[in-house]
Amino acid sequence: MTGVAAAVMTGPGAVELREFPRPEPEPGAVVLDMRLSGICGTDKHTFRGETLQYAGTPHERQIGYPLICGHENVGVIAAIGGADAVPDGAGRPLRVGDRVVPAANVTCGRCWYCLTGQPYYLCERMEDYGNSLGCADPPHLFGGWAEQMYLLPGTALHRVPDAVPDELAVLTEPLAVTHGIDTARRLRRPSFGESVVVVGVGPLGLCHLIKARLVGCGRLIAIDLLPSRLALAEDLGATLALRADELEAGQLAERVRAHTDGRGADLVIDASGVPETFPTCLRLVRTGGVLVEAGAFVDLGPVGVNPAADICTRNVTVLGIGGELLSDYGPALELLARSHDRLPVDRIVSHRLPLSRAGEAVELAQRDGAMKVVLGGR
Amino acid sequence: MTGVAAAVMTGPGAVELREFPRPEPEPGAVVLDMRLSGICGTDKHTFRGETLQYAGTPHERQIGYPLICGHENVGVIAAIGGADAVPDGAGRPLRVGDRVVPAANVTCGRCWYCLTGQPYYLCERMEDYGNSLGCADPPHLFGGWAEQMYLLPGTALHRVPDAVPDELAVLTEPLAVTHGIDTARRLRRPSFGESVVVVGVGPLGLCHLIKARLVGCGRLIAIDLLPSRLALAEDLGATLALRADELEAGQLAERVRAHTDGRGADLVIDASGVPETFPTCLRLVRTGGVLVEAGAFVDLGPVGVNPAADICTRNVTVLGIGGELLSDYGPALELLARSHDRLPVDRIVSHRLPLSRAGEAVELAQRDGAMKVVLGGR
Amino acid sequence: MTGVAAAVMTGPGAVELREFPRPEPEPGAVVLDMRLSGICGTDKHTFRGETLQYAGTPHERQIGYPLICGHENVGVIAAIGGADAVPDGAGRPLRVGDRVVPAANVTCGRCWYCLTGQPYYLCERMEDYGNSLGCADPPHLFGGWAEQMYLLPGTALHRVPDAVPDELAVLTEPLAVTHGIDTARRLRRPSFGESVVVVGVGPLGLCHLIKARLVGCGRLIAIDLLPSRLALAEDLGATLALRADELEAGQLAERVRAHTDGRGADLVIDASGVPETFPTCLRLVRTGGVLVEAGAFVDLGPVGVNPAADICTRNVTVLGIGGELLSDYGPALELLARSHDRLPVDRIVSHRLPLSRAGEAVELAQRDGAMKVVLGGR
Amino acid sequence: MTGVAAAVMTGPGAVELREFPRPEPEPGAVVLDMRLSGICGTDKHTFRGETLQYAGTPHERQIGYPLICGHENVGVIAAIGGADAVPDGAGRPLRVGDRVVPAANVTCGRCWYCLTGQPYYLCERMEDYGNSLGCADPPHLFGGWAEQMYLLPGTALHRVPDAVPDELAVLTEPLAVTHGIDTARRLRRPSFGESVVVVGVGPLGLCHLIKARLVGCGRLIAIDLLPSRLALAEDLGATLALRADELEAGQLAERVRAHTDGRGADLVIDASGVPETFPTCLRLVRTGGVLVEAGAFVDLGPVGVNPAADICTRNVTVLGIGGELLSDYGPALELLARSHDRLPVDRIVSHRLPLSRAGEAVELAQRDGAMKVVLGGR
Repeated sequence: MTGVAAAVMTGPGAVELREFPRPEPEPGAVVLDMRLSGICGTDKHTFRGETLQYAGTPHERQIGYPLICGHENVGVIAAIGGADAVPDGAGRPLRVGDRVVPAANVTCGRCWYCLTGQPYYLCERMEDYGNSLGCADPPHLFGGWAEQMYLLPGTALHRVPDAVPDELAVLTEPLAVTHGIDTARRLRRPSFGESVVVVGVGPLGLCHLIKARLVGCGRLIAIDLLPSRLALAEDLGATLALRADELEAGQLAERVRAHTDGRGADLVIDASGVPETFPTCLRLVRTGGVLVEAGAFVDLGPVGVNPAADICTRNVTVLGIGGELLSDYGPALELLARSHDRLPVDRIVSHRLPLSRAGEAVELAQRDGAMKVVLGGR
Repeated sequence: MTGVAAAVMTGPGAVELREFPRPEPEPGAVVLDMRLSGICGTDKHTFRGETLQYAGTPHERQIGYPLICGHENVGVIAAIGGADAVPDGAGRPLRVGDRVVPAANVTCGRCWYCLTGQPYYLCERMEDYGNSLGCADPPHLFGGWAEQMYLLPGTALHRVPDAVPDELAVLTEPLAVTHGIDTARRLRRPSFGESVVVVGVGPLGLCHLIKARLVGCGRLIAIDLLPSRLALAEDLGATLALRADELEAGQLAERVRAHTDGRGADLVIDASGVPETFPTCLRLVRTGGVLVEAGAFVDLGPVGVNPAADICTRNVTVLGIGGELLSDYGPALELLARSHDRLPVDRIVSHRLPLSRAGEAVELAQRDGAMKVVLGGR
Repeated sequence: MTGVAAAVMTGPGAVELREFPRPEPEPGAVVLDMRLSGICGTDKHTFRGETLQYAGTPHERQIGYPLICGHENVGVIAAIGGADAVPDGAGRPLRVGDRVVPAANVTCGRCWYCLTGQPYYLCERMEDYGNSLGCADPPHLFGGWAEQMYLLPGTALHRVPDAVPDELAVLTEPLAVTHGIDTARRLRRPSFGESVVVVGVGPLGLCHLIKARLVGCGRLIAIDLLPSRLALAEDLGATLALRADELEAGQLAERVRAHTDGRGADLVIDASGVPETFPTCLRLVRTGGVLVEAGAFVDLGPVGVNPAADICTRNVTVLGIGGELLSDYGPALELLARSHDRLPVDRIVSHRLPLSRAGEAVELAQRDGAMKVVLGGR
Repeated sequence: MTGVAAAVMTGPGAVELREFPRPEPEPGAVVLDMRLSGICGTDKHTFRGETLQYAGTPHERQIGYPLICGHENVGVIAAIGGADAVPDGAGRPLRVGDRVVPAANVTCGRCWYCLTGQPYYLCERMEDYGNSLGCADPPHLFGGWAEQMYLLPGTALHRVPDAVPDELAVLTEPLAVTHGIDTARRLRRPSFGESVVVVGVGPLGLCHLIKARLVGCGRLIAIDLLPSRLALAEDLGATLALRADELEAGQLAERVRAHTDGRGADLVIDASGVPETFPTCLRLVRTGGVLVEAGAFVDLGPVGVNPAADICTRNVTVLGIGGELLSDYGPALELLARSHDRLPVDRIVSHRLPLSRAGEAVELAQRDGAMKVVLGGR
């Protein structure tokens, strides 16, 4: 067979393996031989058809089918259009055979957001692999759940250090979403050794927990419904793990305060993906602390918030984080290169399935016992 | 008569003129001959008895009666306890006869918030003049609605530049509450020339508007229910004034976008004091912009907020601002010294009443046609 | 005559009027009918041949002759290549006839500096109009000292608000160089109302002084050798003007301290362009303050600095500022739109000469009595 | 014997063991049974009499003899004046028997620096243990090189977590000096995973290196003259170690660039303590990077710096760091509590000597093979 296999989502709940013609890169474009592609929370929503109702972005784009998902990618350069080399994110030449993590998005470079140095995912005409870029038209392969991926000219590429295995490199993108931690440190003292709560330690929460640990936080509290996730969180450095199904919001707040000298946490990360946790998170953060709202990419409706009691008089800062920083792919890979031997890779990437089992993989990613699920190989 | 007159709030809705013995300052304390004392939004809530239900501070203090309100103060030093001089906020000696603005609060200096350089109003054992410090016990005079005021040892004092009239000096404290503007500039580009919306241009909103204008914002939009307030806002530099009673939230958002190149405002200040405006404000801010929640000192219940659509995917930052920075009293006075001739003082301080009419003044401060109302003289 | 006239620098000290063919814009390029082009300090160095020795940029580019100088520009769009419109810095369409300020530089978009959101002038392959882009080859017109200017595809363009006259619009670029003031405010309290010293109030220093005043600084001290410059500085809001030729470094420091409550200035801007002022500036800044080194674009050799006494133990921050922020063109134009009626335009732009007298204009720009000198018209 | 032994510096180069009366704490004061006290670079300068010429602080205090040195301390509370408990840095009660690290300084609380939340060591009337506070007068014991130490009322105390051994707790103060790393992250992207050079890996440099590693830097380069220090640096995570005696400044710069994708380091820490390294450090930092000048507490004269080539056109930021943040003692202890098992304590604290051998210890601290030298026990 000479075609390129890909897992195509043809509608809500439907994924099937299809073949596409082997792509020829236009000048500046790159074709990647895929190694691994992660399943993201957004993919689960897309699979459930929820992103049809609300695209979860500032631009309210509609995601259309058919679609090849997959924006957390690692692969090897198979072809470069019109040149021997293409620059990586550090300006060094990349050549065929180099292992890279591509950026999840391509920007227009001409809108106000692009021209004024705002976070790149705020671009008004952003295209995102595995989301806004469908597979109906050639060259089709705009998602990572495939044997090959087509990267448009201008897509940033980041060389993967040799020390970093594919299973960690595939975490680069979600790690680059954790910049709320860094911004919080710009805003508030202390800038290190702070207490951190992560609410929802699925893959994105776990990336926040890993990041918090590797950049020198102090006490680290994980909250989740699933015991398997809390157990992994503890192995990764959580100093306290709390079961959200066994404790009410007030009890959680009390336990967090007891673990943080009575004050509440300096920093709370809401990576749950559901709105109900938002008011609870506001109760976990200390007066003057920061709440990072990072997981709610899909609109699941409003919740009750008290601007006076929860935000104004308690001097709380809320940081909405809607995507990853382009400038953080490189540092994330550096961090993984320095710390890979301290991370239980096989537990963080809990399952690896072939493309032919993509639908099963999405289902699996939503169950207890699963952490990051990745796809690789036909 | 030799006593010191003060307007004493004896319970919700009840203010009467009483006399107290002339105070003798203990070592380090200062007695002030009051020039002017402002009526703050919190005072209105206290007058209505609303602060009985919820004290509006992180420490959930109960404000008790009898109480001499008044924490926006300017006066002249009448006596210094145990010394010829006391240092001002710049470390220079202050003597009897010097005109000063005292800080609204006194901190403990020993709690975590004090020791780690957090905003001083987060002190766990803070005492605030005109609020937590009642007048039941000697020396009684812990509020500015009086002929004299007693300042505890350790209270910061700021010398008023000669060029600044009393009517502007009395705005120093609310101007020092506007630091959300400065923090927003630390977080986001642009750092000047940005578009700003102020929702609720009562006295606190007006101080934000004055600050925004004097520190070089670009387009400046005022939103309020009262035409008299919007007219003053326009005279102070608002480039657009919108009637909140004539436009729905969606229409306000549309008008704000039309005035800001289609994006929404870089910075939105919620100075309305009511929770209902909070979700509206979230719709006025641009993707990646900042919302300062500054007016909601008193708990009036929750509102519906959508963490996904309003905060996370739009990358919005919310800054809760619960008080003034001690370090901003000096800069606020410097700014007034530089800009006093560009401010229509008599319209900003719309009414000046004697202490004997304090109750009437509080009522007045809540009506159309009034802006900052101040008390001065028996 | 059908050609386009330009003032061409053919070598050190030699400028002559030449004609070039009227350019046809390639797709994405823009041709500008020039209104005004400023003479910058760098141009003076180039005229003196000093930039031959050291190009003054991180990339150590050699500036070659022949060259059309001029990177502080305002003009009207004459033609757009391959389209009816081109987006401005706010993403809105610009058409023929629109008045704009073009960015002084074009970046590669692919190097580490571009990809990670560093200041755009750090681009490793930056081309700058009037400097690195000579006029030997077609389309020749890469500088503003000409009747028309050719702007390469990807050059950012900023629409000039109607309220801003050409004479102020031409200051947009140097105003966008003053971001050291904003960065200092991110680093240190106070964030407004601070004391500022500007050393060297030539055009760049004056732009810093204007910016400082318009964004709400407090006391403002100007230091220069030329009385005419100090007089203008005072009219623009300097609260103290000091003659550098009449006072030694120690005396300057003493006078600055006396004007700043004994501490020294919160912020010192070195816009002198000569290295000798650098150690003096370190003595003018308060302990814990910030020194912005903004004027020294051309290498004139080392000076003696004491890292212990001047920087470490006094906790001083030094910010080297080597160019303008792309994101500050828009805010600078907004600020000018808000404040133009408070600025004595005809004194800030002291001389306007035709292109045929460009050599004379450069000489003039270095003399007492001159502030910003601009070129416009044949 | 019932007296308290202390190592008293009676003049340059002279240290002897003396006995003092057992102190009785005044109200609010605390007496500590000393566990360990470190020898700091400043102590070495004091021992050599260099601090007589220049006190190395903004206030130009003269350090006088006789003096008990020692401001890097850990001990156990022996007595509290006038109370059962005293609050720690987190506001929790400390009692007799609790193990603590005391702050190195006591501030006045009334000067501009104290009132405006500047770094506490900028206090205009600061007293520092082991430096400005001599031992001529009762209660004498104002330094840590003693069996007991007397802590004035208002001295901040930080409880040592059980997991942290004395040998690491004694590093809390120098770790709290490394805040230049955190400030650099506020200023520049990337905010983690950045490349770091530490020049001079003596104890202070090593603390910077440990901090950089524990807060998630990427590549980490150590430069020193002594092979023993470089070997330890590599064991602590340096990815490159360079001998300053074998490579010229230009060669060092070349090696650093080769290790940092050709750019130079994002962050350079000058912890050498001598001025000659300063211009070299400026050559090691990338364009747009940050240089932290942290080690030069004692004035050893000026060096040649080029403001144009080294700072302005390369957009370099220099952060002078003259002391530790009070708010960083707690986070430093948290970081040690989380990471103590990854640090080779016995190599970081290379020598432990009794007080009776203090002079020998100071000599030893300046030799190859020694890292942090501490005193403990009579």
